[in-house]
Amino acid sequence: MSDCTGSAFTLTVFGESHGPAIGAVVTGLVPGTVIDEEFMARQMDKRRAKGKISTARTEADRVRIVSGVYKGRATGTALTLLIENQNVRSGDYQKTENLLRPGHADYTAFAKYGGHQDPRGGGHFSGRLTAPLVAAGSIFTKMLAEKGVVIATHLARCGGVEDVPFSRDPDTLLAQAKALNQRDFAVLDEGRAAAMTRVIEAASAEGDSVGGVLETVVLGLPAGVGEPFFHSVESVLAQLLFSIPAVKGVEFGDGFALADLHGSQANDPLRMQNGRIVTTQNRNGGVNGGITNGMPVVLRSVVKPTPSIYKVQQTVDYAAKRNATLQINGRHDPCIVHRARVVQDSLVAFGLADLWAQQEGMKWSTD
Amino acid sequence: MSDCTGSAFTLTVFGESHGPAIGAVVTGLVPGTVIDEEFMARQMDKRRAKGKISTARTEADRVRIVSGVYKGRATGTALTLLIENQNVRSGDYQKTENLLRPGHADYTAFAKYGGHQDPRGGGHFSGRLTAPLVAAGSIFTKMLAEKGVVIATHLARCGGVEDVPFSRDPDTLLAQAKALNQRDFAVLDEGRAAAMTRVIEAASAEGDSVGGVLETVVLGLPAGVGEPFFHSVESVLAQLLFSIPAVKGVEFGDGFALADLHGSQANDPLRMQNGRIVTTQNRNGGVNGGITNGMPVVLRSVVKPTPSIYKVQQTVDYAAKRNATLQINGRHDPCIVHRARVVQDSLVAFGLADLWAQQEGMKWSTD
Amino acid sequence: MSDCTGSAFTLTVFGESHGPAIGAVVTGLVPGTVIDEEFMARQMDKRRAKGKISTARTEADRVRIVSGVYKGRATGTALTLLIENQNVRSGDYQKTENLLRPGHADYTAFAKYGGHQDPRGGGHFSGRLTAPLVAAGSIFTKMLAEKGVVIATHLARCGGVEDVPFSRDPDTLLAQAKALNQRDFAVLDEGRAAAMTRVIEAASAEGDSVGGVLETVVLGLPAGVGEPFFHSVESVLAQLLFSIPAVKGVEFGDGFALADLHGSQANDPLRMQNGRIVTTQNRNGGVNGGITNGMPVVLRSVVKPTPSIYKVQQTVDYAAKRNATLQINGRHDPCIVHRARVVQDSLVAFGLADLWAQQEGMKWSTD
Amino acid sequence: MSDCTGSAFTLTVFGESHGPAIGAVVTGLVPGTVIDEEFMARQMDKRRAKGKISTARTEADRVRIVSGVYKGRATGTALTLLIENQNVRSGDYQKTENLLRPGHADYTAFAKYGGHQDPRGGGHFSGRLTAPLVAAGSIFTKMLAEKGVVIATHLARCGGVEDVPFSRDPDTLLAQAKALNQRDFAVLDEGRAAAMTRVIEAASAEGDSVGGVLETVVLGLPAGVGEPFFHSVESVLAQLLFSIPAVKGVEFGDGFALADLHGSQANDPLRMQNGRIVTTQNRNGGVNGGITNGMPVVLRSVVKPTPSIYKVQQTVDYAAKRNATLQINGRHDPCIVHRARVVQDSLVAFGLADLWAQQEGMKWSTD
Repeated sequence: MSDCTGSAFTLTVFGESHGPAIGAVVTGLVPGTVIDEEFMARQMDKRRAKGKISTARTEADRVRIVSGVYKGRATGTALTLLIENQNVRSGDYQKTENLLRPGHADYTAFAKYGGHQDPRGGGHFSGRLTAPLVAAGSIFTKMLAEKGVVIATHLARCGGVEDVPFSRDPDTLLAQAKALNQRDFAVLDEGRAAAMTRVIEAASAEGDSVGGVLETVVLGLPAGVGEPFFHSVESVLAQLLFSIPAVKGVEFGDGFALADLHGSQANDPLRMQNGRIVTTQNRNGGVNGGITNGMPVVLRSVVKPTPSIYKVQQTVDYAAKRNATLQINGRHDPCIVHRARVVQDSLVAFGLADLWAQQEGMKWSTD
Repeated sequence: MSDCTGSAFTLTVFGESHGPAIGAVVTGLVPGTVIDEEFMARQMDKRRAKGKISTARTEADRVRIVSGVYKGRATGTALTLLIENQNVRSGDYQKTENLLRPGHADYTAFAKYGGHQDPRGGGHFSGRLTAPLVAAGSIFTKMLAEKGVVIATHLARCGGVEDVPFSRDPDTLLAQAKALNQRDFAVLDEGRAAAMTRVIEAASAEGDSVGGVLETVVLGLPAGVGEPFFHSVESVLAQLLFSIPAVKGVEFGDGFALADLHGSQANDPLRMQNGRIVTTQNRNGGVNGGITNGMPVVLRSVVKPTPSIYKVQQTVDYAAKRNATLQINGRHDPCIVHRARVVQDSLVAFGLADLWAQQEGMKWSTD
Repeated sequence: MSDCTGSAFTLTVFGESHGPAIGAVVTGLVPGTVIDEEFMARQMDKRRAKGKISTARTEADRVRIVSGVYKGRATGTALTLLIENQNVRSGDYQKTENLLRPGHADYTAFAKYGGHQDPRGGGHFSGRLTAPLVAAGSIFTKMLAEKGVVIATHLARCGGVEDVPFSRDPDTLLAQAKALNQRDFAVLDEGRAAAMTRVIEAASAEGDSVGGVLETVVLGLPAGVGEPFFHSVESVLAQLLFSIPAVKGVEFGDGFALADLHGSQANDPLRMQNGRIVTTQNRNGGVNGGITNGMPVVLRSVVKPTPSIYKVQQTVDYAAKRNATLQINGRHDPCIVHRARVVQDSLVAFGLADLWAQQEGMKWSTD
Repeated sequence: MSDCTGSAFTLTVFGESHGPAIGAVVTGLVPGTVIDEEFMARQMDKRRAKGKISTARTEADRVRIVSGVYKGRATGTALTLLIENQNVRSGDYQKTENLLRPGHADYTAFAKYGGHQDPRGGGHFSGRLTAPLVAAGSIFTKMLAEKGVVIATHLARCGGVEDVPFSRDPDTLLAQAKALNQRDFAVLDEGRAAAMTRVIEAASAEGDSVGGVLETVVLGLPAGVGEPFFHSVESVLAQLLFSIPAVKGVEFGDGFALADLHGSQANDPLRMQNGRIVTTQNRNGGVNGGITNGMPVVLRSVVKPTPSIYKVQQTVDYAAKRNATLQINGRHDPCIVHRARVVQDSLVAFGLADLWAQQEGMKWSTD
């Protein structure tokens, strides 16, 4: 089950960084769902490596739909997305195959797969596998958009530089979210983009890397989406976000800051506003008891600095079982936070669409 | 699928706070697995409300095993645990049934279930549902213990008071973990227990509540446990922990603190030590690429302050659809962090046993 | 996953014949679904052992709903049904525990569970486990009935005696189906009931047993229910029916008789009739490509003769690993075909409701 | 979930007859499992249309492995098989798109997918989708073969012509099974092959088609494979076999013939033989209580005559909602029984490997 998730919809991801192709299979789509290949390409473009702040490996990442679509719409049967690997230079990896890269899955993949894993470019553990997640996620982002839901993510922090926070005013927040979705480098205050870029370039110049925090808002979801316990909104989204390589923490609403508050501070008082029930503070990030309450869903993930750095590192030679030093070759990102942002958007879209569809399915027999 | 989780093993939870009974079904147990009812009772006791820092509702919580066990061992077919509800005072809830409790699932349950939910005592959303999770989890905690795995959780923070950190020395850490598992109020420095208790009692006296942070270590797991992507160690454990009512954030290793480090700081250098591969820093909390690396698994969750407080709160009358004030009756906990600790132990045990069993299953055809 | 099935709805069965209790958990119910305990009791009564043609072990089989129902309606969270075992005489089994009963699961349970199975009364493999299937199935039978779907099963054969066939006239067929559901011993021609009863009693008098064929019709299902491939109507219903102990074959429409036809005979010509599309022959039993076509779903299962007979049988002593003879004690049915009929109704109801709910869920995003 | 099945292993099928490609994804493979592309090609060849008894549409059906294999062995992550569609003549279908083909899924696909299905060549419902099932199944057939398990299927009947039965002598049976697996047209008595071929050709000459019965034996499985209830050997294999287009019945052992026996005849007496427990009759087809008993697993499926016939047929124009006549164009098989045989082998292999792997996984914690 490792490569598959979802309930009403399922998402399966396959491929290796230097294998023939990578891709995804999506099931459960409602027949007639519009598959917007242009929007898919735009989302893919947000993830693409560009400029000096990304890897020199650039892939066209053209997504080929090989099943499940007829005349631009989902047939309702399994939809398969295929991305051929093209710009592969596996030679970079061969000489260091047994030198485990610190912070990477090299050692754990050996421990798990006993040497049968494809080690080239990180194999199945490569960040490259997030490309099909974005392609598949674009379908759900679009599906939610047509129901009035806007999902947007900004780099709340990157390399120690902080972006301004999301507005608490609903109209401003909506404008911010829409603006973010037009930007390649997703910050609210574009001045901070320049500062972040400088920090990334400086780390890159030293053969080092930086991390950050991605903050997402979801606007327009109704109350009542999510399941109790193991498929709560938080459970489902956290499961998905922790599958992004490099994410090491996920929090909702005020998250870890709730630890030091009193209940009388942390509780979200409820009020009537224009005939709708709202909370005055949204400290719970739009989710109570695992179910949406109609306020913006707010969540943050931490993306650790890219482990692939050019500095000399202490490690172990797996074959020889002895200490060694490693200087990595290959082409790597000094920062992936700005590229991971659309991956986060995509997985949040998948998770929420999946939960919403389950909730709608629940209305069946009382129609 | 809302109430069920797991792959090699499955765990289903059922019941409502004031219904006839609550319980759990566990499948996938290896025939012959010892079911230690005495250990189960000890784990249940750690969760039990005691003294002035917990609710006045005390339940015997006797666990009755109604299927799947013969002569003290798992038969291999579905194991069902049943806990009758006894100390029920539903009258406390009737007069305020439409007054939504801030910070609770009252409103979202209305939105989701359309009024068909059982509202008494929070129904299916009550913290009481964590009792069967502990009963079921005890089976997996025991199973892992027999394979040399120790799981222990402390209150890293509670009501603003901080416990001392876990030791970085392996032997001391193991001793700390074992000592924690003998304690009712799980802190490393027992002096902090007194300070935390005072803070909880003070909040209680004001009709208020406090939250905290639970930190867990898992010792003795081999490298190689966990699946790529959606069933990574982080994905699976986070999904489980976010199903604990009140948990709003989960992080692994250095977690959110990784955001501001450089790769050269955050990477875990690998070294040979007594013939084993170790990392020198364990900043990734024992997990790389979603798979254990043989170092202690370290994770933290934040538990928000109990939303049930006795102070007057602003809220909405759901039936009348107008603003209202609420003063809660019923019996509630001024803090659940110390009781939630064994719930966290239990779910971590379930998640890791499930992943380990999948990994062992993978060895099948090459035996 | 052995004890759990379903997609939109799930059904988990637990318990052992002589353990404390047996039961079932149902998830996915739409909040507000009426839970009709009186109808449940009536269905349970159809399965109950009665008279000389059944076992002398009679159980009250009172079903206790311990979760998931509030004020007579499903809450939408896990619904648990519990049936206490009462009339247990395990002593009957102890002396012959190692003498494998031919035709039973005794040997295979040893091979699978390595001696950890509960052997008393067949343990988890007892036909008694079908009681919770009937209790749970009654919910789905009722749910479908409210949507105009009638499910009815007759003993098409029993002990070599054949019932008359279902009518091809829709109105007569509906009347037959409704009449069957009022009968304890479900045959279309009540004269055949007497003949079948005589054959069962004769076998019983000789310490022997008989089998038969159960034929089910489902009326009122719309076209479009079912999934391609692994969750076709045939796949789902066959999976469920083969989980009834003693069922060894399942066929749809003309079934095995299709082998010798030409395509020009076997094809179901389509015609317009009163504005609806119908087939003129229904040789495919209401299913094409795994999906309902709006005609009656017709299926048959074969129920082998009860393996528990009182005649002396050749077998093996499992412990001693040597040949032995066995004369069974305990209380057993000389025929279970008439009791299995409501089990078949129940599982067909579950399977079709599950597929229909999936199909309705598919309409979500295009509402 | 429609296109996915399995527990320890999963199998997902995708594609449409005239879309860009068809294929399958397999998960759960043990790292290091040999992927024998030559054997895969031989199995694919058994399914290929050849001669006058098959369709004139011949596809190279070259299987491209795009993920999950490295140096000829499974990596342990998702394995994806891709088969490009090449010999496509969709024009044949356009003029008759609304004329529902009797016996086909045309009408039911309209009812289910509301016109969004890909109608060309039957779309997702085409028998062509069994090609990836054979490719994927070859991995499991090979895996079982390496554990000493032989699976073989013969045309027990075809077009009214009967093959000789399998031998009851174990050595002869093994020889028969091995011989069958070398044959293109799988009958035990090659004289019957000629007779069947003549019947198929005669039907073809008349623009008609024939069906038959496929009988499979599985030799070498240990006792103890299979799960109680919903994942019994019969449940799992029937679910898989009913996903083959045209299968309308499945029976195990003596199947429907058991209906008229007494228990004293139908029971399989157990005996010790060379230190092993055997049954003397194998009337239960190697399965008791849903679990293998170490005897050959024996099952039969009925394959209805191909619904695509060239004779003029009565049908309905779906768009005009009126009666119509249809003369099919396109290229079709007058018989698919001989081609379906390797599909049956493949799905039986998948199902049994999946159950066996679950059983082996059960041994985990008692190692």
